[in-house]
Amino acid sequence: MARVLTPRAEDFPRWYQDLIAKAQLADNGPVRGTMVIRPTAYAIWERIQSEMDARIKDAGAENAYFPLFIPESYLTREAEHVEGFSPELAVVTHGGGKQLAEPVVVRPTSETVIGEFMAKWIDSYRDLPLLLNQWANVVRWEMRPRVFLRTSEFLWQEGHTAHATEQDARAYAKKILHEAYEDLMVEVLAMPVLVGRKTDRERFAGATSTYCLEGMMGDGKALQMGTSHELGQNFAKAFDIAFSSQSGARELAWTTSWGTSTRMVGGLIMCHGDDSGLRVPPVLAPIQAHVMIVKGGDGVLEAASKIKEDLRAAGVRVGFDDRVDTPFGRRAVDAELKGYPIRVEVGPRDLAAGNVTVARRFDGSKASVPLAGVVEAVTAALQNDQRALYDQALAHREANTHEVKTLGEAIEASATGWARVPWSAVGVEGEAEANRSAVTVRCLVRPDGSVPESATEPDLVAVLGRSY
Amino acid sequence: MARVLTPRAEDFPRWYQDLIAKAQLADNGPVRGTMVIRPTAYAIWERIQSEMDARIKDAGAENAYFPLFIPESYLTREAEHVEGFSPELAVVTHGGGKQLAEPVVVRPTSETVIGEFMAKWIDSYRDLPLLLNQWANVVRWEMRPRVFLRTSEFLWQEGHTAHATEQDARAYAKKILHEAYEDLMVEVLAMPVLVGRKTDRERFAGATSTYCLEGMMGDGKALQMGTSHELGQNFAKAFDIAFSSQSGARELAWTTSWGTSTRMVGGLIMCHGDDSGLRVPPVLAPIQAHVMIVKGGDGVLEAASKIKEDLRAAGVRVGFDDRVDTPFGRRAVDAELKGYPIRVEVGPRDLAAGNVTVARRFDGSKASVPLAGVVEAVTAALQNDQRALYDQALAHREANTHEVKTLGEAIEASATGWARVPWSAVGVEGEAEANRSAVTVRCLVRPDGSVPESATEPDLVAVLGRSY
Repeated sequence: MARVLTPRAEDFPRWYQDLIAKAQLADNGPVRGTMVIRPTAYAIWERIQSEMDARIKDAGAENAYFPLFIPESYLTREAEHVEGFSPELAVVTHGGGKQLAEPVVVRPTSETVIGEFMAKWIDSYRDLPLLLNQWANVVRWEMRPRVFLRTSEFLWQEGHTAHATEQDARAYAKKILHEAYEDLMVEVLAMPVLVGRKTDRERFAGATSTYCLEGMMGDGKALQMGTSHELGQNFAKAFDIAFSSQSGARELAWTTSWGTSTRMVGGLIMCHGDDSGLRVPPVLAPIQAHVMIVKGGDGVLEAASKIKEDLRAAGVRVGFDDRVDTPFGRRAVDAELKGYPIRVEVGPRDLAAGNVTVARRFDGSKASVPLAGVVEAVTAALQNDQRALYDQALAHREANTHEVKTLGEAIEASATGWARVPWSAVGVEGEAEANRSAVTVRCLVRPDGSVPESATEPDLVAVLGRSY
Repeated sequence: MARVLTPRAEDFPRWYQDLIAKAQLADNGPVRGTMVIRPTAYAIWERIQSEMDARIKDAGAENAYFPLFIPESYLTREAEHVEGFSPELAVVTHGGGKQLAEPVVVRPTSETVIGEFMAKWIDSYRDLPLLLNQWANVVRWEMRPRVFLRTSEFLWQEGHTAHATEQDARAYAKKILHEAYEDLMVEVLAMPVLVGRKTDRERFAGATSTYCLEGMMGDGKALQMGTSHELGQNFAKAFDIAFSSQSGARELAWTTSWGTSTRMVGGLIMCHGDDSGLRVPPVLAPIQAHVMIVKGGDGVLEAASKIKEDLRAAGVRVGFDDRVDTPFGRRAVDAELKGYPIRVEVGPRDLAAGNVTVARRFDGSKASVPLAGVVEAVTAALQNDQRALYDQALAHREANTHEVKTLGEAIEASATGWARVPWSAVGVEGEAEANRSAVTVRCLVRPDGSVPESATEPDLVAVLGRSY
């Protein structure tokens, strides 16, 4: 088969670009750094949204929508926040044919505008916790854009909550981290994410604690797949988010925020993709089984249609391709590029013997399956290959994670993967030194793998790597 | 019961504002003309989205996402389009701390940017029809904003399709009009929309035909609930959307666009709302039955919980209110304001007799129902009241639609409702005269009620009215 993509081993970034173009996932937009998400990738994003939305609602948050435009003055109320976001802002100076009295910024994130309304809506402890989420686009001007990973506009969900106590805020930030984010990434995206705590240097602008989920990509680099922040009382002070407590005293609330974005689609591609294209995990896949007619012939269309209906009846999400005027080879390459977990190939020769071919995208294997066994073969393969993708990604991460003792070794190991090193051997100065080699502390974890509540806990392990 | 809202008969616009504030549906955003959609209203919008999305997918369109930012030069390529939208544009002049070489506009609609990509993606007749839809926010600077009805930013879906022939484009614009839009508005929103054709004066900027759906509000005014446009080859010419035909010739495509927005939420409020608040049609309602504990007592919580579970098991979307520390009267008023179709009120006195109270929001009626009959009573009421809301709205429209013969009579009748008048008695000049009295031609329909394909068909009826 002709080479369709630049092999990953030859040039990983080039492979990523090739795949996005050839599988028709996305295009660059006309304004620098923006992207067009094409139907194949958007369908994946819709499935991520729907799975994430259900988990966020299970965690008790309600969806709402806040404006795209934020008065510039809001941003400046929280000092770290404005410092963090100023370089990335898009500013609207004209509206309705006139220069605006006060320029407005296009939201880079919504802590400020949501803080303003939380202050209006919260009166007493009975109004807490206030648990909000929104699905929206945000804009952060990118100097070095890369489709899905760093784009000037991206789609995301951003949750914002207010609580009566610091403990409650912390518990909720972690609930989302584990029950929504980690669960979705592991169970749906089949990605073995590392869950930890950011160092002070890597914290979100305005947060007191940032928890994160890091995925290892095919080239050993890290991608931050999502973050959940405790904001302490920083935004509560800046926007006067206060409540009367049960004793009648006026107290400031404790807030959190948390987000995941279309960047996850980039992570999915770079985690599971291979030299033939994307591999979409079955639980996520908008099309789980793609029924294809190899070429026309007696009863082929009928047999393929029946398989489609049988699979649908069994709860499988099915695609159907009867475009026999396009060569089968080209269509099969396209199906591989798009990463459909299973292809059911129906052709006159197989059919004459009562069989069809079931091809698994996970390992490229093909089996001849009698008609009566197709549903069972497909559902078994879907179940197996979800787990197999996860296991393969985990094995890749383990093979490319190195236990080391010193900062120097950690920086060296980061050339090909991740390094686990005692945080005490790195520290704030070591972190700055690593940064000069384009290596960052991806997160801090406890020796038992759980998530630390502060960077000063004893025996913490720092995980270092290069990143997207 | 104390008066909660300004009565509709006293001041309809004030009633609308009161309702939106008291039912906590939305707030004005900090930037003039923007809005915050609060959870109660956003849940309604999510249900509309999900029902609309399913219909759009059934019509064969696929979702995609195009950038928020459009180069200013794109807008100018189609002359009528730029003229129509220029006064409403928001312009970004600065990004990433620098002045931009070319200002970018925040999309007021996406015909131009999608046209650019259709031109890239379409090669031959095999690529047609290309059927795309996106869910997005758009910005049109509003001088006289009103929440949900006219806001500087709103949420919508915009469909964009390209076809090989004019007939195919027309058929698709009408398919969406009837099978997606009209069906959703009638079956889900319970609104008897009038479906017709816009006059040339009221056409979308850049379209050759605009089809529309008009709803009559409680005060007799019209609200445009959605539009579907044939764009002819206007955008195909401007963006070079061309394809090679089966004979190998290069031909320009025919395109359509169609949209519905959060404005539908405003229409829903003004169509079905009464002096006690919103009334949400059962098929639409995020909460169909709201189970409320009147006050605590032996077995009350257990009985209410069982009713909740039984209703859920019967496929009813259930809300639950056990906040006995808030007076029941206040909670009942809030439930009426929010328009839950059914309230199931569970209190110790009723319960001692083996009963609960089932209250219907449609007509305010209350019935004492034995525990064993609750599920049946609720499901029957839900089914009945969906139809009853539609019938009531239809009766209101018919009572306030006047058959007249002359333009003068039509303008006069428009003071309180709609006027049906022969289009030949109005014409282009009469339309301009009506506009000077703040009366517009809402649409043209055929005598049999069907949708005309041009404004020059004989015997057309013009429907005139005031509008939002």
